[in-house]
Amino acid sequence: MTQQDYKIISHEKRLRRSQKIPPAWILDQEMLHGSINLFDVPPTCGILSETEIEITSNYDATGLLMGLKVGTWSVEQVTTAFCKRAAIAHQMVNCLTEIFFDQAIERARQLDKQRLDLTDGKTLPPLFGLPVSLKDTFQVKGHDTSTGLACYVNAPAEEHSAIAAMLLDLGAILYCKTNVPQLVMTADSDNNVFGRTLNPINASITAGGSTGGEGALLALRGSVLGVGTDIGGSIRVPALCNGIYGLRPSAGLIPHGGTRDLTEPGTDGVRSSVGPMATTFRDCVLFLKSIMKAGTWKYDSAVISLPWIDLKAAKTLRIGVVEDDGVYTPVPPVRRVLKKAVDQLRQSNAVEIIPLTLPNVKNLCEDLLTYFTLLGDENYLEQFSRTGEPVVPSLKTIGLLSREKTTLKGFFDLNVRRAEAAKVYLRLFCDNNLDAILMPPAPHTALPLDTWTSITYTGLWNYLDYPAVVIPIDVVTDSDSKDDLSNAKNGTHDAEVYKLYTGPDLYKGLPIAVQVVGYRHQDEALVATAGMLDSIINGERL
Amino acid sequence: MTQQDYKIISHEKRLRRSQKIPPAWILDQEMLHGSINLFDVPPTCGILSETEIEITSNYDATGLLMGLKVGTWSVEQVTTAFCKRAAIAHQMVNCLTEIFFDQAIERARQLDKQRLDLTDGKTLPPLFGLPVSLKDTFQVKGHDTSTGLACYVNAPAEEHSAIAAMLLDLGAILYCKTNVPQLVMTADSDNNVFGRTLNPINASITAGGSTGGEGALLALRGSVLGVGTDIGGSIRVPALCNGIYGLRPSAGLIPHGGTRDLTEPGTDGVRSSVGPMATTFRDCVLFLKSIMKAGTWKYDSAVISLPWIDLKAAKTLRIGVVEDDGVYTPVPPVRRVLKKAVDQLRQSNAVEIIPLTLPNVKNLCEDLLTYFTLLGDENYLEQFSRTGEPVVPSLKTIGLLSREKTTLKGFFDLNVRRAEAAKVYLRLFCDNNLDAILMPPAPHTALPLDTWTSITYTGLWNYLDYPAVVIPIDVVTDSDSKDDLSNAKNGTHDAEVYKLYTGPDLYKGLPIAVQVVGYRHQDEALVATAGMLDSIINGERL
Repeated sequence: MTQQDYKIISHEKRLRRSQKIPPAWILDQEMLHGSINLFDVPPTCGILSETEIEITSNYDATGLLMGLKVGTWSVEQVTTAFCKRAAIAHQMVNCLTEIFFDQAIERARQLDKQRLDLTDGKTLPPLFGLPVSLKDTFQVKGHDTSTGLACYVNAPAEEHSAIAAMLLDLGAILYCKTNVPQLVMTADSDNNVFGRTLNPINASITAGGSTGGEGALLALRGSVLGVGTDIGGSIRVPALCNGIYGLRPSAGLIPHGGTRDLTEPGTDGVRSSVGPMATTFRDCVLFLKSIMKAGTWKYDSAVISLPWIDLKAAKTLRIGVVEDDGVYTPVPPVRRVLKKAVDQLRQSNAVEIIPLTLPNVKNLCEDLLTYFTLLGDENYLEQFSRTGEPVVPSLKTIGLLSREKTTLKGFFDLNVRRAEAAKVYLRLFCDNNLDAILMPPAPHTALPLDTWTSITYTGLWNYLDYPAVVIPIDVVTDSDSKDDLSNAKNGTHDAEVYKLYTGPDLYKGLPIAVQVVGYRHQDEALVATAGMLDSIINGERL
Repeated sequence: MTQQDYKIISHEKRLRRSQKIPPAWILDQEMLHGSINLFDVPPTCGILSETEIEITSNYDATGLLMGLKVGTWSVEQVTTAFCKRAAIAHQMVNCLTEIFFDQAIERARQLDKQRLDLTDGKTLPPLFGLPVSLKDTFQVKGHDTSTGLACYVNAPAEEHSAIAAMLLDLGAILYCKTNVPQLVMTADSDNNVFGRTLNPINASITAGGSTGGEGALLALRGSVLGVGTDIGGSIRVPALCNGIYGLRPSAGLIPHGGTRDLTEPGTDGVRSSVGPMATTFRDCVLFLKSIMKAGTWKYDSAVISLPWIDLKAAKTLRIGVVEDDGVYTPVPPVRRVLKKAVDQLRQSNAVEIIPLTLPNVKNLCEDLLTYFTLLGDENYLEQFSRTGEPVVPSLKTIGLLSREKTTLKGFFDLNVRRAEAAKVYLRLFCDNNLDAILMPPAPHTALPLDTWTSITYTGLWNYLDYPAVVIPIDVVTDSDSKDDLSNAKNGTHDAEVYKLYTGPDLYKGLPIAVQVVGYRHQDEALVATAGMLDSIINGERL
């Protein structure tokens, strides 16, 4: 242990975090007692004005930008409203890590001033005045990027991550960063510095991870547009758990420079991808388009800078549907909702459904785990040991530690197998002439704390680097009974996960989503297709 | 040694190769005696008809396609003309490895027939009827991909490489493959199976490598459009040596699937890039555009499929000029020609010149060599040992063998250093607001056989994955005297290379070129810019 004990670091860090919330925004703890629905708290707690409730409740980012553009509200009004609501959300579910409301409001005032000075005809930047929340992993100058590791507390970033710099240049307001799991890897956003982020729907259920703080914050509308990263499902899992939209673009498309991840600098193989989380599908597109059109290559020397070419969706789509990935059997409510979505698509007459079987998922996802631990766990454990912090339960659950390290030849062998798999999946995509693949984002909904182990439904697409978006569709209802364990036909690991679904008593109200997967680097084609599917399934939803 | 002795394999392979040339196309060996200029042979040897001389001498690929489109010639006429001329070139400079003229002419006849069947309004594919030559590294179904390694002779490919499949789908005719060095790495296209390709300008000087067969074939107009690969300069070096154009795109942009390279499957780090070699600049663009518009992702699961967006060059350009990379001092004729080009650009009033210093080239290129030999030389030597073949002299010269292998951690450390360098070079590019960098492609012209060691001028851009194109400008003239060795100020390695230039006696007539370098993945912007520079410097040249 070369630094202070993690308990002291954490205690002091949490204290400083608390002090960043103005006294007037402190929630009456009485409100949280009893069986209150947390979603009722923000509009009723008395901290938000009527206008602030309207701003934060009734618009998505696209809608807010229109209002900001025509001057319905000042940037300061909108920023203050989201700072307040984020503060409220945080006090309920512990979703924030770094809080810089004061800076945000100061910048909002500057933008309001600059706006007055604008000469006629000068256009506002595309994200003018929009508050955007960031996962803790992104460096924001002057603030920690601890990612919940005690050893990185009190080391403020000297420069912005590329995405933070881009968002600011595009006119956005940064106001907070959000919680993650230890090592930014599990589906439970729990760490020794900031503690656990709770799911606002049900505190005994995970808020998802690794971008779980973001997921909970968005669900409570303390943000309408958040930025996460995804190397195994870290955007899509919390999107599922919190009933929001989450897009994992192809790796490298959105600048990843200046991000602290699981993977050490220089580690190659499977790369973390930066993407949006939002309350509407169009806001995911807003993010993707705004960033892609803004010259990503100037911000990050490692990006793959694809131009935005205003692709439209085909008039009729061919969608491959995967009911079961051959590793984990989806539980009854997940099957019900996928079937419902497929029926809606079929009935639209705009979509042709092609039943699809995904080859070799189990082995490929085993290789994915090897990519995650190429250098073993020494480096991870060393980071923990600096402050004496223990391994959090969810990290033990997923068994990421104590995996063997790999050699250079072993790494290249992994690459060979992946290249072969990429050929097989290309043929699957091309020979079926698919516009996208539709499947669940997980075999289940959000799960009880520290029990999530399955990553195949999301991780396969990280392994192959296919873009994928999660679209919320429904929730678990009283009619979603559990069924017989014998339905889990993929082996004991399948049965272990399948039996976690104990029926609606525990799971009622938890979101169910679909995942739409596109081809590598065809991200614009994916969002065109997925946007069409979303409107068929969900209609217009803001 | 587990196979036949390489001498037997080579002898039989050369024999079979010879038999692929129809007797009527056999050159009278008398023609090659004495001091004849090889460039005079094709039009005067009596093998080509007047029309065939015209077809092969007076057009570039773009021009040929126009003629083919309007029916000036049949596909069979054009194909036969280039097969004949390639056969002639080969007999002079030993540039071909695989010869399949019969298949090419058969396909040409089929295309001519299909054309007659075309209903009105149906457009011809973009490369309809165009003969395209390929470096030996690309798999063509039914033919070897030995790359001059005896152990791979007599193992015909079972499928086309991605680029061969694409070219055929685009209407092109494949008719031959061309020679490379042992291990596809050196600047001398010499190997134990096929022997050495000679430079048609001067047989005591290298034809360049690794795409040297292609370079010599194009110089003699046995082809107008060839496809090479470049991992350290393998397109650009032979382009320089033979006075043609050669474009190395960003890695992954053009499909590389089904190519036998130096690097083993799965090896990551610095990747070989596929690109065109041609007699005009516009033909490089023709190739790039045709391939990029044809959905590369459907042919190769490893591509970076950027859309072609019809970019135009800016009206005025900012060009960074590098006179000396700090490792090797350009010899007098190279300096003269760069200065001449820069003067022309300045005088055009369309170009602003920014003098540029490239940071840290020597160390970065040392890392490049480490990337080339990540697994040491065991695998290479094992391939040689199977047939008992010796190491060719040029491979000894460059010292690629007997380098230490790397560990996985060492590999990631290399990646870290490269990521840092990428940041530095991004700033160089952006802070200077550059459209491109202009510099020599080498500190010298083509060199005497087996003496080429410098790779910094080309290799830096492989290391950073920047696209780069070589544009021929001039030749060494009587006035290009050697100067004092003291002008080589970068150390003893610099002096060793500098002193190779012994003045015009040996070097007269050898081509001198410039290299135009763009930013990673901005290949379309690069060709727009470089095309403008080419027309300012060279005027319209077909």
